[in-house]
Amino acid sequence: MASDRSQLRAQSVVAFGGGHGLAATLQALRLLVDDLVVDDLTAVVTVADNGGSSGRLRSEFGVLPPGDLRMALAALCGENRWGDTWARVLQHRFAGQGEMRGHVIGNLLIVGLWEQLGDPVAALDWVGKLLGTSGRVLPMALTPLDITAHVRGLDRDDPDRLTPVRGQVEVATTDGVIASIALDPPDPTPCPEAVDAVHAADWVVLGPGSWFTSVIPHLMVPALRGAIVGSDARVVVTLNLDEQAGETPGFGAADHLAVLAEHAPELRVDTVLADTRHAREPELEQVVQATGARLVVADVACDDGSPRHDPVKLAAAYSAVMGGSPEGADAAR
Amino acid sequence: MASDRSQLRAQSVVAFGGGHGLAATLQALRLLVDDLVVDDLTAVVTVADNGGSSGRLRSEFGVLPPGDLRMALAALCGENRWGDTWARVLQHRFAGQGEMRGHVIGNLLIVGLWEQLGDPVAALDWVGKLLGTSGRVLPMALTPLDITAHVRGLDRDDPDRLTPVRGQVEVATTDGVIASIALDPPDPTPCPEAVDAVHAADWVVLGPGSWFTSVIPHLMVPALRGAIVGSDARVVVTLNLDEQAGETPGFGAADHLAVLAEHAPELRVDTVLADTRHAREPELEQVVQATGARLVVADVACDDGSPRHDPVKLAAAYSAVMGGSPEGADAAR
Repeated sequence: MASDRSQLRAQSVVAFGGGHGLAATLQALRLLVDDLVVDDLTAVVTVADNGGSSGRLRSEFGVLPPGDLRMALAALCGENRWGDTWARVLQHRFAGQGEMRGHVIGNLLIVGLWEQLGDPVAALDWVGKLLGTSGRVLPMALTPLDITAHVRGLDRDDPDRLTPVRGQVEVATTDGVIASIALDPPDPTPCPEAVDAVHAADWVVLGPGSWFTSVIPHLMVPALRGAIVGSDARVVVTLNLDEQAGETPGFGAADHLAVLAEHAPELRVDTVLADTRHAREPELEQVVQATGARLVVADVACDDGSPRHDPVKLAAAYSAVMGGSPEGADAAR
Repeated sequence: MASDRSQLRAQSVVAFGGGHGLAATLQALRLLVDDLVVDDLTAVVTVADNGGSSGRLRSEFGVLPPGDLRMALAALCGENRWGDTWARVLQHRFAGQGEMRGHVIGNLLIVGLWEQLGDPVAALDWVGKLLGTSGRVLPMALTPLDITAHVRGLDRDDPDRLTPVRGQVEVATTDGVIASIALDPPDPTPCPEAVDAVHAADWVVLGPGSWFTSVIPHLMVPALRGAIVGSDARVVVTLNLDEQAGETPGFGAADHLAVLAEHAPELRVDTVLADTRHAREPELEQVVQATGARLVVADVACDDGSPRHDPVKLAAAYSAVMGGSPEGADAAR
């Protein structure tokens, strides 16, 4: 009976992340909007980037770094010639050797909208309207912030000493092992629309993505963490397909869950979504069960051998998890 | 009877120019599209700019200078919140002291579209669709070009000597008196859609605008000049309201017509549209009559004392000239 009920009502979903990992999740969830499994989709995006085009614009204008917001918007663009063309243009990065080299059209457009409209959320909604997006894209905070980390192994004389590292790029590319991350400022102004979306959500999706710089930072914004922990939304953690140099070298699936729990002990995870490759890790099922979550293992990887999720496979898995298909509803019981 | 007939069929209009002058004409003609006096409107824009944001982008990417094209598109934008917002964003110019200072969002967007789509005309059509423009904006040539001039008065020892000056900015701000201009290359690749629009036009509008760097250059593109001279379209020359430092110091209305005729002797002008302020110049009527054209004098200036045309007044004047109103039809008989 539960499966029948879950099939009757479309789901409201908030997806948290940063760059390519969030884009894969959004491309998957967009398909579920088309399939009427999801009727309300919100992406909440990290705003700690300090590198590349985003870092230059942030430094020049004191604005939020626009790059990950732009990538999330493009991932949700309408599947027609209009949406596809504007998404391609907004994703266009200037080449050459001149002053524009490396800048991305959509980043510049978003900054221009911010300066013209003065309201960061309204500006992103305008880009969403331009692209015909199947959902809304919001920043995790209204002020640019920095990720700081305590990193082990950077001190040759004392390998156990924790060294502070500051900046998303610096943390993501450290030669040491990240022990923990924090935000500066530690209590940034949250985006009220993001907090409201979490309160209204049936499902919250964390990951995939750069674990310490795109996924965990959301849980370090006190207002967002409070909303996630306090809402009735069920939390899905989508594990990365592989370790990531710099951020998670040598990390298995269980290690990803462990550092998540260390940063947000009160977070109750409903579902851990892992790729079939993780079925080889014997401790994963125990770790997941110990947290009271269920483990869903599915083939969600691209066939090209890259550590990227395939949006179509990921959509099928999310549909199953969220009860949009009979198999999924069964699994969710 | 002529007036009845002219009221029955809406007019096809091609307006030639560059920056602010063309924008005023387009804002006026857009009103006539709303009034069903004009049903087909094309702007053809100079592509010789070598200064500011346009000059930087042209130099960095080897593209057409986008600034005047962007300004023409914004002048034709839809009169609703969507068109108005995107026009404001596309006209937004970055301030500050950083690398983006002076760049304009719409210029960057147009260059991105050119790089993505590879077709300059299709890209401008996409911006037109975004803005909901009441007409099409085309470049006067498909390759960037330079304006060169022969300038008198730059040589202190021989004030009559003609000195060559190269570049739109350099010509527009010369301390001497411009004797003539030319293009480099002298026979640039024309935009076929612009040539076709002239052949299909009922009216061609030249000016207002920087006379030597925005108006006359169109007549120096052999294919465009041939189309204008060879088509059945009637030519309206809209005179500037005032002399312009650098380009036309000390020029009266008749002087503007004289240099136009020197650069394109075979051009047959149907109507010269002058502001009431020019009625004070006794030689104007004689000069116009000598060319076989008719002189239409109307109040077309902004009330703020600036040398700018008021789009609403200009619309009334164009409507009268093109036979869209009974008075206009009378005047046009």
